[in-house]
Amino acid sequence: MDEISKAAFRRLPRYHQILTAFESLGREYISSRELSEILEINETLVRKDMADLKIRGKQNQGYSIGGLRRRIEDFLGLQDITEALVIGAGHLGTALATYGGFAHYGLKIVGVLDNDPNRIGSMTGGYEVTSVFRLASLIQKLKVKLIILCVPKEAAQELTDIAVNAGVKAIWNFTPQELSVPEGVKVRNEQIIGGFMALSHFLKTQSGAEKDSQQQH
Amino acid sequence: MDEISKAAFRRLPRYHQILTAFESLGREYISSRELSEILEINETLVRKDMADLKIRGKQNQGYSIGGLRRRIEDFLGLQDITEALVIGAGHLGTALATYGGFAHYGLKIVGVLDNDPNRIGSMTGGYEVTSVFRLASLIQKLKVKLIILCVPKEAAQELTDIAVNAGVKAIWNFTPQELSVPEGVKVRNEQIIGGFMALSHFLKTQSGAEKDSQQQH
Repeated sequence: MDEISKAAFRRLPRYHQILTAFESLGREYISSRELSEILEINETLVRKDMADLKIRGKQNQGYSIGGLRRRIEDFLGLQDITEALVIGAGHLGTALATYGGFAHYGLKIVGVLDNDPNRIGSMTGGYEVTSVFRLASLIQKLKVKLIILCVPKEAAQELTDIAVNAGVKAIWNFTPQELSVPEGVKVRNEQIIGGFMALSHFLKTQSGAEKDSQQQH
Repeated sequence: MDEISKAAFRRLPRYHQILTAFESLGREYISSRELSEILEINETLVRKDMADLKIRGKQNQGYSIGGLRRRIEDFLGLQDITEALVIGAGHLGTALATYGGFAHYGLKIVGVLDNDPNRIGSMTGGYEVTSVFRLASLIQKLKVKLIILCVPKEAAQELTDIAVNAGVKAIWNFTPQELSVPEGVKVRNEQIIGGFMALSHFLKTQSGAEKDSQQQH
Protein backbone atom coordinates (compact mmCIF):
# COMPACT_ATOMS: atom_id res chain seq x y z
CA MET A 1 0.00 0.00 0.00
CA ASP A 2 1.29 3.42 -0.96
CA GLU A 3 1.92 5.90 1.79
CA ILE A 4 1.38 9.63 1.75
CA SER A 5 1.38 12.15 4.57
CA LYS A 6 -1.76 12.59 6.69
CA ALA A 7 -2.06 16.21 5.60
CA ALA A 8 -1.83 15.26 1.92
CA PHE A 9 -4.39 12.53 2.52
CA ARG A 10 -6.84 15.08 3.91
CA ARG A 11 -6.45 17.17 0.76
CA LEU A 12 -7.36 14.32 -1.61
CA PRO A 13 -11.16 14.80 -1.42
CA ARG A 14 -10.75 18.49 -2.30
CA TYR A 15 -8.43 17.70 -5.18
CA HIS A 16 -10.95 15.15 -6.35
CA GLN A 17 -13.80 17.64 -6.19
CA ILE A 18 -11.87 20.30 -8.11
CA LEU A 19 -10.78 17.82 -10.77
CA THR A 20 -14.33 16.56 -11.25
CA ALA A 21 -15.59 20.14 -11.58
CA PHE A 22 -12.94 21.05 -14.18
CA GLU A 23 -13.50 17.79 -16.03
CA SER A 24 -17.22 18.51 -16.36
CA LEU A 25 -16.27 21.83 -17.98
CA GLY A 26 -14.30 19.91 -20.62
CA ARG A 27 -10.84 20.87 -19.35
CA GLU A 28 -8.05 18.30 -19.83
CA TYR A 29 -5.12 19.74 -17.89
CA ILE A 30 -4.68 21.70 -14.68
CA SER A 31 -1.54 23.39 -13.39
CA SER A 32 -0.09 23.18 -9.89
CA ARG A 33 -0.59 26.95 -9.72
CA GLU A 34 -4.32 26.68 -10.40
CA LEU A 35 -4.67 23.93 -7.81
CA SER A 36 -2.71 25.96 -5.27
CA GLU A 37 -4.89 29.04 -5.83
CA ILE A 38 -8.18 27.17 -5.51
CA LEU A 39 -7.01 25.23 -2.44
CA GLU A 40 -5.31 28.30 -0.95
CA ILE A 41 -2.13 26.36 -0.24
CA ASN A 42 1.46 26.78 -1.35
CA GLU A 43 2.26 25.63 -4.89
CA THR A 44 5.27 23.69 -3.56
CA LEU A 45 2.88 21.67 -1.43
CA VAL A 46 0.73 20.83 -4.46
CA ARG A 47 3.82 19.66 -6.33
CA LYS A 48 4.83 17.53 -3.36
CA ASP A 49 1.36 15.97 -3.13
CA MET A 50 1.52 15.12 -6.84
CA ALA A 51 4.95 13.56 -6.39
CA ASP A 52 3.59 11.50 -3.47
CA LEU A 53 0.76 10.32 -5.73
CA LYS A 54 3.40 9.51 -8.38
CA ILE A 55 1.70 11.86 -10.84
CA ARG A 56 3.88 13.82 -13.24
CA GLY A 57 2.77 16.93 -15.09
CA LYS A 58 3.54 17.91 -18.67
CA GLN A 59 5.67 20.96 -19.39
CA ASN A 60 3.43 24.01 -20.04
CA GLN A 61 0.25 21.96 -19.68
CA GLY A 62 0.16 20.69 -16.13
CA TYR A 63 -1.42 17.52 -14.85
CA SER A 64 -3.87 15.39 -16.80
CA ILE A 65 -7.17 15.96 -15.00
CA GLY A 66 -8.62 12.54 -15.83
CA GLY A 67 -5.39 10.75 -14.97
CA LEU A 68 -5.04 12.51 -11.64
CA ARG A 69 -8.67 11.91 -10.74
CA ARG A 70 -8.38 8.19 -11.49
CA ARG A 71 -5.13 7.99 -9.53
CA ILE A 72 -6.86 9.47 -6.46
CA GLU A 73 -9.84 7.13 -6.89
CA ASP A 74 -7.55 4.14 -7.12
CA PHE A 75 -5.53 5.28 -4.12
CA LEU A 76 -8.68 5.70 -2.01
CA GLY A 77 -10.26 2.45 -3.21
CA LEU A 78 -13.21 4.31 -4.72
CA GLN A 79 -13.36 2.01 -7.72
CA ASP A 80 -14.29 -0.91 -5.48
CA ILE A 81 -17.84 -1.05 -4.14
CA THR A 82 -18.20 -0.46 -0.39
CA GLU A 83 -21.56 -1.53 1.03
CA ALA A 84 -22.94 0.29 4.04
CA LEU A 85 -25.95 0.38 6.33
CA VAL A 86 -27.49 3.70 7.37
CA ILE A 87 -28.63 3.60 11.00
CA GLY A 88 -31.27 6.20 11.80
CA ALA A 89 -33.97 7.15 9.29
CA GLY A 90 -34.43 10.75 10.45
CA HIS A 91 -33.80 13.72 8.16
CA LEU A 92 -30.03 13.29 8.03
CA GLY A 93 -30.16 9.49 7.60
CA THR A 94 -32.75 9.95 4.85
CA ALA A 95 -30.66 12.65 3.18
CA LEU A 96 -27.64 10.32 3.13
CA ALA A 97 -29.68 7.26 2.05
CA THR A 98 -31.21 9.15 -0.87
CA TYR A 99 -28.12 11.08 -1.96
CA GLY A 100 -27.40 10.02 -5.52
CA GLY A 101 -23.80 11.19 -5.50
CA PHE A 102 -22.40 8.34 -3.37
CA ALA A 103 -22.59 5.75 -6.16
CA HIS A 104 -20.00 7.78 -8.06
CA TYR A 105 -17.54 7.08 -5.22
CA GLY A 106 -18.26 3.37 -4.88
CA LEU A 107 -20.43 3.78 -1.77
CA LYS A 108 -23.55 1.63 -1.94
CA ILE A 109 -26.20 1.89 0.76
CA VAL A 110 -27.68 -1.60 1.24
CA GLY A 111 -30.14 -0.86 4.04
CA VAL A 112 -31.64 1.70 6.40
CA LEU A 113 -32.49 0.88 10.03
CA ASP A 114 -34.44 2.69 12.72
CA ASN A 115 -36.00 1.96 16.12
CA ASP A 116 -39.21 3.92 15.54
CA PRO A 117 -42.19 1.57 14.93
CA ASN A 118 -43.75 4.31 12.77
CA ARG A 119 -40.77 4.28 10.45
CA ILE A 120 -40.06 0.54 10.35
CA GLY A 121 -41.57 -0.98 7.20
CA SER A 122 -41.96 2.40 5.47
CA MET A 123 -39.92 3.32 2.40
CA THR A 124 -37.02 5.75 2.69
CA GLY A 125 -35.36 6.62 -0.61
CA GLY A 126 -35.97 3.21 -2.13
CA TYR A 127 -35.16 1.29 1.05
CA GLU A 128 -37.64 -0.41 3.34
CA VAL A 129 -36.69 0.71 6.85
CA THR A 130 -35.65 -2.29 8.95
CA SER A 131 -35.84 -2.59 12.73
CA VAL A 132 -32.59 -1.72 14.45
CA PHE A 133 -32.96 -4.99 16.39
CA ARG A 134 -31.91 -6.72 13.18
CA LEU A 135 -28.63 -4.77 13.03
CA ALA A 136 -26.28 -7.61 14.00
CA SER A 137 -27.97 -10.21 11.82
CA LEU A 138 -28.06 -7.86 8.80
CA ILE A 139 -24.35 -7.03 9.18
CA GLN A 140 -23.48 -10.72 9.31
CA LYS A 141 -25.81 -11.71 6.47
CA LEU A 142 -24.66 -8.93 4.11
CA LYS A 143 -21.03 -8.95 5.36
CA VAL A 144 -21.19 -5.18 5.78
CA LYS A 145 -17.97 -3.53 6.99
CA LEU A 146 -19.24 0.07 7.21
CA ILE A 147 -22.12 1.69 9.10
CA ILE A 148 -23.30 5.27 8.81
CA LEU A 149 -24.51 6.43 12.20
CA CYS A 150 -27.29 9.07 12.17
CA VAL A 151 -29.00 8.35 15.49
CA PRO A 152 -29.47 10.43 18.64
CA LYS A 153 -26.23 10.83 20.58
CA GLU A 154 -27.50 8.65 23.44
CA ALA A 155 -27.89 5.56 21.24
CA ALA A 156 -24.57 5.89 19.39
CA GLN A 157 -22.22 3.86 21.61
CA GLU A 158 -24.59 0.92 22.13
CA LEU A 159 -25.23 0.57 18.38
CA THR A 160 -21.50 0.88 17.72
CA ASP A 161 -20.79 -1.99 20.13
CA ILE A 162 -23.39 -4.20 18.45
CA ALA A 163 -22.09 -3.37 14.97
CA VAL A 164 -18.44 -3.94 15.87
CA ASN A 165 -19.26 -7.28 17.52
CA ALA A 166 -21.06 -8.28 14.34
CA GLY A 167 -17.99 -7.55 12.21
CA VAL A 168 -18.11 -3.86 11.22
CA LYS A 169 -14.66 -2.31 10.71
CA ALA A 170 -15.49 1.32 9.94
CA ILE A 171 -17.98 3.77 11.42
CA TRP A 172 -18.98 7.01 9.75
CA ASN A 173 -20.22 8.88 12.79
CA PHE A 174 -22.62 11.78 12.22
CA THR A 175 -23.51 11.97 15.93
CA PRO A 176 -21.67 14.31 18.31
CA GLN A 177 -20.84 11.30 20.53
CA GLU A 178 -17.17 10.31 20.96
CA LEU A 179 -17.16 6.56 20.29
CA SER A 180 -15.00 3.90 21.92
CA VAL A 181 -13.97 1.14 19.53
CA PRO A 182 -11.43 -1.69 19.74
CA GLU A 183 -8.17 -1.52 17.82
CA GLY A 184 -8.56 -2.30 14.13
CA VAL A 185 -11.85 -0.40 13.86
CA LYS A 186 -11.82 3.08 12.38
CA VAL A 187 -14.19 5.90 13.32
CA ARG A 188 -14.62 8.99 11.19
CA ASN A 189 -16.33 11.80 13.09
CA GLU A 190 -18.30 13.99 10.73
CA GLN A 191 -18.39 17.29 12.48
CA ILE A 192 -20.68 19.37 10.36
CA ILE A 193 -20.47 22.17 12.91
CA GLY A 194 -16.74 22.54 12.15
CA GLY A 195 -17.60 24.24 8.87
CA PHE A 196 -19.77 26.76 10.66
CA MET A 197 -17.00 27.48 13.15
CA ALA A 198 -14.67 28.56 10.35
CA LEU A 199 -17.35 30.86 8.88
CA SER A 200 -18.28 32.24 12.29
CA HIS A 201 -14.65 33.21 12.86
CA PHE A 202 -14.51 34.87 9.43
CA LEU A 203 -17.72 36.86 10.03
CA LYS A 204 -16.52 37.95 13.45
CA THR A 205 -13.17 39.08 12.06
CA GLN A 206 -14.88 40.87 9.19
CA SER A 207 -17.46 42.72 11.25
CA GLY A 208 -14.61 43.78 13.53
CA ALA A 209 -12.68 45.08 10.51
CA GLU A 210 -15.77 46.94 9.26
CA LYS A 211 -16.29 48.60 12.63
CA ASP A 212 -12.63 49.63 12.66
CA SER A 213 -12.92 51.16 9.20
CA GLN A 214 -16.19 52.89 10.11
CA GLN A 215 -14.55 54.40 13.14
CA GLN A 216 -11.85 55.86 10.93
CA HIS A 217 -14.40 57.95 9.04
CA MET B 1 -7.80 39.73 16.19
CA ASP B 2 -5.67 36.85 17.41
CA GLU B 3 -3.86 34.77 14.85
CA ILE B 4 -3.18 31.06 14.90
CA SER B 5 -1.95 28.75 12.16
CA LYS B 6 -4.41 27.40 9.60
CA ALA B 7 -3.71 23.85 10.73
CA ALA B 8 -4.36 24.71 14.38
CA PHE B 9 -7.54 26.50 13.33
CA ARG B 10 -8.80 23.34 11.63
CA ARG B 11 -8.25 21.40 14.86
CA LEU B 12 -10.39 23.74 17.00
CA PRO B 13 -13.75 22.08 16.23
CA ARG B 14 -12.32 18.68 17.25
CA TYR B 15 -10.85 20.12 20.44
CA HIS B 16 -14.20 21.70 21.15
CA GLN B 17 -16.06 18.43 20.62
CA ILE B 18 -13.70 16.48 22.86
CA LEU B 19 -13.87 19.12 25.61
CA THR B 20 -17.67 19.17 25.50
CA ALA B 21 -17.75 15.36 25.72
CA PHE B 22 -15.40 15.27 28.72
CA GLU B 23 -17.24 18.14 30.40
CA SER B 24 -20.53 16.26 30.15
CA LEU B 25 -18.85 13.39 31.99
CA GLY B 26 -18.01 15.74 34.85
CA ARG B 27 -14.27 15.98 34.14
CA GLU B 28 -12.56 19.29 34.97
CA TYR B 29 -9.08 18.91 33.55
CA ILE B 30 -7.54 17.28 30.50
CA SER B 31 -3.87 16.72 29.74
CA SER B 32 -2.03 17.46 26.50
CA ARG B 33 -1.26 13.75 26.36
CA GLU B 34 -4.95 12.79 26.45
CA LEU B 35 -5.75 15.35 23.77
CA SER B 36 -2.88 14.12 21.61
CA GLU B 37 -4.03 10.49 21.91
CA ILE B 38 -7.65 11.22 21.04
CA LEU B 39 -6.71 13.50 18.14
CA GLU B 40 -3.91 11.18 17.00
CA ILE B 41 -1.45 14.06 16.74
CA ASN B 42 1.87 14.78 18.40
CA GLU B 43 1.72 16.03 22.00
CA THR B 44 4.12 18.85 21.10
CA LEU B 45 1.57 20.07 18.58
CA VAL B 46 -1.18 20.09 21.22
CA ARG B 47 1.06 22.16 23.51
CA LYS B 48 1.78 24.56 20.67
CA ASP B 49 -1.94 24.94 19.89
CA MET B 50 -2.63 25.70 23.56
CA ALA B 51 0.16 28.29 23.59
CA ASP B 52 -1.34 29.88 20.44
CA LEU B 53 -4.70 30.04 22.21
CA LYS B 54 -2.90 31.56 25.21
CA ILE B 55 -4.11 28.73 27.43
CA ARG B 56 -1.80 27.52 30.19
CA GLY B 57 -2.15 24.17 31.92
CA LYS B 58 -1.65 23.39 35.60
CA GLN B 59 1.20 21.14 36.70
CA ASN B 60 -0.03 17.53 37.09
CA GLN B 61 -3.60 18.48 36.20
CA GLY B 62 -3.54 19.75 32.65
CA TYR B 63 -5.84 22.28 31.07
CA SER B 64 -9.11 23.46 32.56
CA ILE B 65 -11.75 21.92 30.30
CA GLY B 66 -14.31 24.68 30.80
CA GLY B 67 -11.73 27.43 30.40
CA LEU B 68 -10.33 25.96 27.21
CA ARG B 69 -13.79 25.38 25.75
CA ARG B 70 -14.80 28.98 26.45
CA ARG B 71 -11.54 30.26 25.00
CA ILE B 72 -12.20 28.39 21.75
CA GLU B 73 -15.80 29.64 21.66
CA ASP B 74 -14.64 33.19 22.17
CA PHE B 75 -11.93 32.84 19.55
CA LEU B 76 -14.42 31.49 16.99
CA GLY B 77 -17.10 34.03 17.83
CA LEU B 78 -19.51 31.30 18.92
CA GLN B 79 -20.84 33.35 21.81
CA ASP B 80 -22.29 35.88 19.38
CA ILE B 81 -25.44 34.92 17.51
CA THR B 82 -25.01 34.35 13.76
CA GLU B 83 -28.28 34.33 11.82
CA ALA B 84 -28.52 32.25 8.67
CA LEU B 85 -30.96 31.27 5.93
CA VAL B 86 -31.18 27.66 4.76
CA ILE B 87 -31.72 27.50 1.00
CA GLY B 88 -33.25 24.23 -0.14
CA ALA B 89 -35.87 22.40 1.94
CA GLY B 90 -34.99 18.86 0.81
CA HIS B 91 -33.80 16.19 3.23
CA LEU B 92 -30.43 17.80 3.94
CA GLY B 93 -31.83 21.33 4.26
CA THR B 94 -34.53 20.01 6.57
CA ALA B 95 -31.98 18.07 8.62
CA LEU B 96 -29.91 21.24 9.08
CA ALA B 97 -32.93 23.46 9.76
CA THR B 98 -34.22 21.10 12.44
CA TYR B 99 -30.89 20.22 14.06
CA GLY B 100 -31.09 21.37 17.66
CA GLY B 101 -27.36 21.40 18.22
CA PHE B 102 -26.61 24.59 16.27
CA ALA B 103 -28.04 26.92 18.92
CA HIS B 104 -25.27 25.77 21.24
CA TYR B 105 -22.74 27.29 18.81
CA GLY B 106 -24.55 30.58 18.27
CA LEU B 107 -25.97 29.57 14.89
CA LYS B 108 -29.59 30.63 14.52
CA ILE B 109 -31.59 29.62 11.44
CA VAL B 110 -34.00 32.47 10.66
CA GLY B 111 -35.64 31.07 7.53
CA VAL B 112 -35.87 28.22 5.02
CA LEU B 113 -36.35 28.82 1.29
CA ASP B 114 -37.20 26.56 -1.63
CA ASN B 115 -38.35 26.86 -5.25
CA ASP B 116 -40.82 23.95 -5.14
CA PRO B 117 -44.44 25.21 -5.05
CA ASN B 118 -45.38 22.06 -3.10
CA ARG B 119 -42.96 23.00 -0.33
CA ILE B 120 -43.50 26.76 -0.23
CA GLY B 121 -45.86 27.62 2.61
CA SER B 122 -45.44 24.25 4.33
CA MET B 123 -43.71 23.95 7.71
CA THR B 124 -40.17 22.57 7.94
CA GLY B 125 -38.86 22.19 11.47
CA GLY B 126 -40.74 25.18 12.81
CA TYR B 127 -40.11 27.35 9.74
CA GLU B 128 -42.61 28.23 7.05
CA VAL B 129 -40.84 27.56 3.76
CA THR B 130 -40.47 30.80 1.78
CA SER B 131 -40.18 31.13 -1.99
CA VAL B 132 -36.59 31.38 -3.17
CA PHE B 133 -37.69 34.42 -5.22
CA ARG B 134 -37.75 36.31 -1.92
CA LEU B 135 -34.09 35.49 -1.21
CA ALA B 136 -32.64 38.96 -1.89
CA SER B 137 -35.38 40.83 -0.04
CA LEU B 138 -35.17 38.49 2.98
CA ILE B 139 -31.39 38.89 3.20
CA GLN B 140 -31.74 42.66 3.12
CA LYS B 141 -34.66 42.79 5.55
CA LEU B 142 -33.06 40.46 8.11
CA LYS B 143 -29.47 41.66 7.43
CA VAL B 144 -28.35 38.06 7.10
CA LYS B 145 -24.63 37.53 6.44
CA LEU B 146 -24.64 33.72 6.11
CA ILE B 147 -26.53 31.33 3.83
CA ILE B 148 -26.56 27.54 4.02
CA LEU B 149 -26.79 26.16 0.51
CA CYS B 150 -28.56 22.77 0.17
CA VAL B 151 -29.88 23.01 -3.38
CA PRO B 152 -29.18 20.96 -6.52
CA LYS B 153 -25.73 21.67 -7.92
CA GLU B 154 -27.16 23.41 -11.00
CA ALA B 155 -28.83 26.15 -8.93
CA ALA B 156 -25.91 26.85 -6.61
CA GLN B 157 -24.02 29.57 -8.49
CA GLU B 158 -27.09 31.61 -9.42
CA LEU B 159 -28.37 31.65 -5.85
CA THR B 160 -24.89 32.53 -4.61
CA ASP B 161 -24.76 35.53 -6.95
CA ILE B 162 -28.16 36.75 -5.74
CA ALA B 163 -27.22 36.30 -2.09
CA VAL B 164 -23.84 38.02 -2.42
CA ASN B 165 -25.41 40.97 -4.27
CA ALA B 166 -27.92 41.26 -1.42
CA GLY B 167 -25.13 41.48 1.19
CA VAL B 168 -24.22 37.93 2.22
CA LYS B 169 -20.57 37.53 3.29
CA ALA B 170 -20.31 33.80 4.02
CA ILE B 171 -21.65 30.73 2.24
CA TRP B 172 -21.81 27.30 3.80
CA ASN B 173 -21.91 25.21 0.64
CA PHE B 174 -23.33 21.69 0.91
CA THR B 175 -23.54 21.31 -2.88
CA PRO B 176 -20.70 19.75 -4.89
CA GLN B 177 -20.54 22.93 -7.04
CA GLU B 178 -17.36 25.03 -6.92
CA LEU B 179 -18.64 28.58 -6.34
CA SER B 180 -17.20 31.84 -7.68
CA VAL B 181 -17.48 34.72 -5.23
CA PRO B 182 -15.97 38.20 -5.12
CA GLU B 183 -13.15 39.03 -2.71
CA GLY B 184 -14.33 39.54 0.86
CA VAL B 185 -16.86 36.69 0.67
CA LYS B 186 -15.96 33.35 2.22
CA VAL B 187 -17.14 29.95 0.99
CA ARG B 188 -16.89 26.84 3.10
CA ASN B 189 -17.30 23.68 1.02
CA GLU B 190 -18.82 20.91 3.11
CA GLN B 191 -17.59 17.79 1.45
CA ILE B 192 -19.42 15.05 3.22
CA ILE B 193 -17.93 12.52 0.81
CA GLY B 194 -14.44 13.31 2.16
CA GLY B 195 -15.23 11.35 5.31
CA PHE B 196 -16.17 8.32 3.27
CA MET B 197 -12.97 8.58 1.26
CA ALA B 198 -10.88 8.23 4.42
CA LEU B 199 -12.88 5.17 5.52
CA SER B 200 -12.78 3.64 2.05
CA HIS B 201 -9.00 3.88 2.06
CA PHE B 202 -8.88 2.28 5.52
CA LEU B 203 -11.15 -0.62 4.50
CA LYS B 204 -9.17 -1.18 1.32
CA THR B 205 -5.88 -1.24 3.24
CA GLN B 206 -7.35 -3.55 5.85
CA SER B 207 -8.87 -6.07 3.48
CA GLY B 208 -5.51 -6.14 1.69
CA ALA B 209 -3.76 -6.85 4.98
CA GLU B 210 -6.28 -9.60 5.83
CA LYS B 211 -5.76 -11.29 2.49
CA ASP B 212 -1.99 -11.17 3.01
CA SER B 213 -2.30 -12.77 6.44
CA GLN B 214 -4.72 -15.43 5.13
CA GLN B 215 -2.28 -16.32 2.40
CA GLN B 216 0.39 -16.93 5.00
CA HIS B 217 -1.64 -19.77 6.53
